[in-house]
Amino acid sequence: MSAYDPSNVFAKILRGEMPAEKVYEDAKTLAFMDIMPRTDGHVLVIPKAPARTFFDLGQEDLAALFASVQKVARAAVAGLGADGLSIQQFNEPAGGQVVFHMHVHVLPRWNGVSLRPHTGEMAPRDVLAANAEKIRAALKA
Amino acid sequence: MSAYDPSNVFAKILRGEMPAEKVYEDAKTLAFMDIMPRTDGHVLVIPKAPARTFFDLGQEDLAALFASVQKVARAAVAGLGADGLSIQQFNEPAGGQVVFHMHVHVLPRWNGVSLRPHTGEMAPRDVLAANAEKIRAALKA
Repeated sequence: MSAYDPSNVFAKILRGEMPAEKVYEDAKTLAFMDIMPRTDGHVLVIPKAPARTFFDLGQEDLAALFASVQKVARAAVAGLGADGLSIQQFNEPAGGQVVFHMHVHVLPRWNGVSLRPHTGEMAPRDVLAANAEKIRAALKA
Repeated sequence: MSAYDPSNVFAKILRGEMPAEKVYEDAKTLAFMDIMPRTDGHVLVIPKAPARTFFDLGQEDLAALFASVQKVARAAVAGLGADGLSIQQFNEPAGGQVVFHMHVHVLPRWNGVSLRPHTGEMAPRDVLAANAEKIRAALKA
């Protein structure tokens, strides 16, 4: 698989060169709202390490990443009152990857509600901010 | 969320009460072929701990599980000559979960090839065995 390209948008978010609605951060990981959410409360969790795909993460970064995914997912489900959770993670274009910094999709789910199609349309900023606030509040609880 | 029910099919596989086409096993995890594969080489990786969902795993089991997912995924992509990889993990019926022992879907992907629909139809046993053998061989390489 290919080398890491530091010009991707998540690398820019990590460097503070682009804004993001952040919900959680620690030494090894960052979580922020997906701007094209497929469900309410759709969060992305990423490693700070420069990993293109899942295969580029060392054991320590991998463990830290999924510990953060669990923490954020628990808060997203609690904060938004979801009935369940789907996790997706895509590698390389064939696997569905669009941004080439490894990321995990955290998708709160509700009974009888399908994932929204990936239209490329951005959610209103105040909607993302309101959902992010619910998740941050649940993380503090 | 609900308690663990040890009568689920993956618990039966772990106890040796039901067969499975296994590709990898260690102290904390087991990986075997999904009998209703959505791609060639569709593998399930499960913790041996009695966890209903992602939320029920402690940090050590979580780290061990995703280390096994990485190992098995790398072998599935290499063994089957895939172009990429998708990972899915579903929790509770709203999240898409059908068998209530926590499991991770490892899906080798090819350029231009969509996931097959979840029809409920089982793959021929010899097809699963042939793909499993390629993954086991890649794990040994």
